Order: sequence, then C-alpha cells, then structure tokens
Amino acid sequence: MTYCVGLLLDAGIVLLSDTRTNAGLDNISCYRKMFTFNRPGDRVIAILTAGSLSTTQTTLARLSDAIDDPESDTPSIMEAETMLEVAEIVGSTLSRTAGDIANKMNGMSQMASATLIVAGQRRGGAMRLFLVYPEGNFIEATRDTPFLQIGEHKYGKPILDRVIRPETTLAEAQKAALLSMDSTLRSNLSVGMPLDMMVIERDALDIAVSRRIEAEDPVYRQMSSDWSEALRDAFRQIRI
Amino acid sequence: MTYCVGLLLDAGIVLLSDTRTNAGLDNISCYRKMFTFNRPGDRVIAILTAGSLSTTQTTLARLSDAIDDPESDTPSIMEAETMLEVAEIVGSTLSRTAGDIANKMNGMSQMASATLIVAGQRRGGAMRLFLVYPEGNFIEATRDTPFLQIGEHKYGKPILDRVIRPETTLAEAQKAALLSMDSTLRSNLSVGMPLDMMVIERDALDIAVSRRIEAEDPVYRQMSSDWSEALRDAFRQIRI
Repeated sequence: MTYCVGLLLDAGIVLLSDTRTNAGLDNISCYRKMFTFNRPGDRVIAILTAGSLSTTQTTLARLSDAIDDPESDTPSIMEAETMLEVAEIVGSTLSRTAGDIANKMNGMSQMASATLIVAGQRRGGAMRLFLVYPEGNFIEATRDTPFLQIGEHKYGKPILDRVIRPETTLAEAQKAALLSMDSTLRSNLSVGMPLDMMVIERDALDIAVSRRIEAEDPVYRQMSSDWSEALRDAFRQIRI
Repeated sequence: MTYCVGLLLDAGIVLLSDTRTNAGLDNISCYRKMFTFNRPGDRVIAILTAGSLSTTQTTLARLSDAIDDPESDTPSIMEAETMLEVAEIVGSTLSRTAGDIANKMNGMSQMASATLIVAGQRRGGAMRLFLVYPEGNFIEATRDTPFLQIGEHKYGKPILDRVIRPETTLAEAQKAALLSMDSTLRSNLSVGMPLDMMVIERDALDIAVSRRIEAEDPVYRQMSSDWSEALRDAFRQIRI
C-alpha cells in the first residue's frame, strides 16, 4: 500500500508521500510516488500515486511522453490552459491505462486500480489540489476540506482533522503531514520510509522545498520520538 | 460500521463498543453491540459484535437460547469447560448463522459477514480475549499483542500501539480505549455515541464496571475536549 497526503493552504501546497511498494508481504520494494512537472514562472504540477505500480508507472510515462511528443494521443499537461484541464488529462490517462492493463488481466480490474493526487498552479490561476479516482473522475480540496489523502489514509487522519485549517502555516502543515505519516508508519507495515516532501508556495510557480527524508534522518527521528513522548505526556494528563 | 476494542491486561479486561448501525447513510440506528453472560463466581463472558446486524443478532439469539434449552443444537457457553471452548462455540454458531443468512441472499456471503470479540474468564482458567472471524476461526490476544479491534479499527490504533502494554492499569486502559474511540468518532461517521464500556477484573469472575456513556456525558465530553487541547499543545511543542 501507500500513504500520500496533500494539503491546500492559503500560503501554499504541502505534499508528502512514502515510497513502499509491495507485491505480497515477501516482495517489498522502494519506488518514488511523487512526480513533478515544473516550468518556473509558468506552472508547477505534482502528481502523487497510490495503487497498482504497473498502472501508475504507465500513466506517468504516458503523461511524460505526451509533453515531448506533439503527435501523442494524450494531450500535454504542460500545455493545458488550467489546472482543471490538467486533472482531466491525468484522469483520462489514468482510466485508459488502468483499462488497458485490466484487459490483460482478464478483466480483474481491481488489480489494475490506482488513485492519484494532482496538485499545482498555473500562471494566472489559483492553486488547486485534486484527488483523481481510478475511473478518472476527481474531487477537489476546498476551504472546508483542505486536505486529500490516498492509500492507507485512516491512521493519519485524526491529527489532520484536528489541526489543519486553510490558515495553517506551511511550517505547521509540514509538521502535521509528517506526524500524520508517522502514525501511519507505526501502525501499518505496508507504508515505509524514505519519504518525499514537497512545498509549493502560493503564486511562486516553482517548487520551494523538495526533499527526501531517509529512515535515519536525525531531524525526522527526533520529531518522531518527541511526538511519541508528547503523546504519552498528553495521555498522562487526561483525567477521566 | 462499528468500532469495538478489547484490551487484555495483567489486571483485567477492558471492553468498549459504539452503538451505531447503518443500512446506507440514510438509515442510521442505535443498537447495543456488547453482550454479557455472567454467573458470578463461576464465569463471566462478554461478546462484542461488528458486521451484519441480522447475523450478529441471530448469532446472539442462538447462543442465548442454547443456554436455556438443553435440546438445542448449539452447546451452551455457560456449560463450556474452558474459554477456548466458548470461542469455538461462538465461532461455529457465527459461521453457521452467516451461512444460513447468505443462503437467503443468493450467496452474497459478504453481506452476511460479521466479526466478534469474545472475552472473559472461567473459574480455574485464565482471562482470555479472542477475535472471532466470519468463518468461525479465531485469534487470541497475547502479551505481545494485548488488544484486539473489530470494525473501523485504523483511526484508533495509533494511540493503542503507543500506550497499551500488559502492565497498563485498568484506569489507564479505560482512558486509552476511550481516546481510541474518540479519534474514531471524530474521523468516521459510521461510528457513533453512545458507548458501552465494561471492565472485568482478573479472577473476580464478575463484572466490575458496566456503563453506558451517552453523547452528553460531561466526563466524556471533558475528556474529549481535554484530549483535543492536549494534542494541539503536543503538536505546538514539536520542532522540525
């Protein structure tokens, strides 16, 4: 499985993904699940992936190839007029790819299923954050629901429900995303380090932060152990 | 859906269940999911239920009827020699009931599926906590894994993973179970108040605490808001 989360805030977008992919419990690999399409000053687009690796890799390959190949059947997301059009291109490419792969699997379509987060901003447009379903339709983050999750989303949802608001700063949002991931990593083996984190500031039309957080990263480890300690302290304080 | 949790500690057993049942989002009802079979000094048995209400009600009815009816096909759990035998009786009754109901649904067996927690102690035996699967097989809590959950278990697992150990006191365990439930209630509409809480002390062969916690319960509400505040404080303290 996977855990990816995107936060749409007044100040920008924060994205976080894990890297664990497994085909059964005895076949675990590390694959990047965060992809960027960036033309500074014009547009910045990020795509996070969950689900069938075969489907997500082929979908990303088709989207990438279409950027360089004007003859491609797939429109280029770098030429799309709006982020909505980007989400539509990604959605239709995903659903077509999943369909092609399901056909090879005698219609076991759930085996080829994948879900994506698409985030970004185009010059002249607003920041947008979409969750693209396997069928290619999508929903969008709003001020009422400023975050979207894919994969193993339940463990890490309570902390986000409690602290994420549109006004949350980018620093606080990165912290919340990491703590949400930390709860997921602790409770579910199918989600694993390292992590990929990205921050896009509002109207910057570029990537502000893009970093890989390794399992031995001292800042992450300290945060994780501080959070465990703070939770245990908080737990001790509660009276019933 | 449902959220039920059972904790097996050195000092006793703590059980907590919600009461929300739904057939679609527009048909929500309140049903007790915690049932007790108690003969003080001889045995105390509790059963928590998740899944098809039709299956769990019929399973409990068959188990209850068997206690009073020596002619019943189902053995009496009040006559079982051990808690293991109780789990076996409950498991075979569950799987037979689910099969009967699935037959009426043209084999849509997943619609008749249910999962149970069975907990208790018999005079001369140890306290035991089992999770009974829809097929009637079961697993048991151990010192390494001292809690079992059924229903919407993911939201509330991180806090239990962090604080529950066999040495945890019954008071702390009740608090952890309630906070685990609180996270689930906040993040998932299919789990709802009121709650049923039970405590069985080791070797007491009786119920120490059995109480219903209503939505407006002032102690629960205070705990819930204190926990939100403590989590936000803990969050503020973390530096990354």
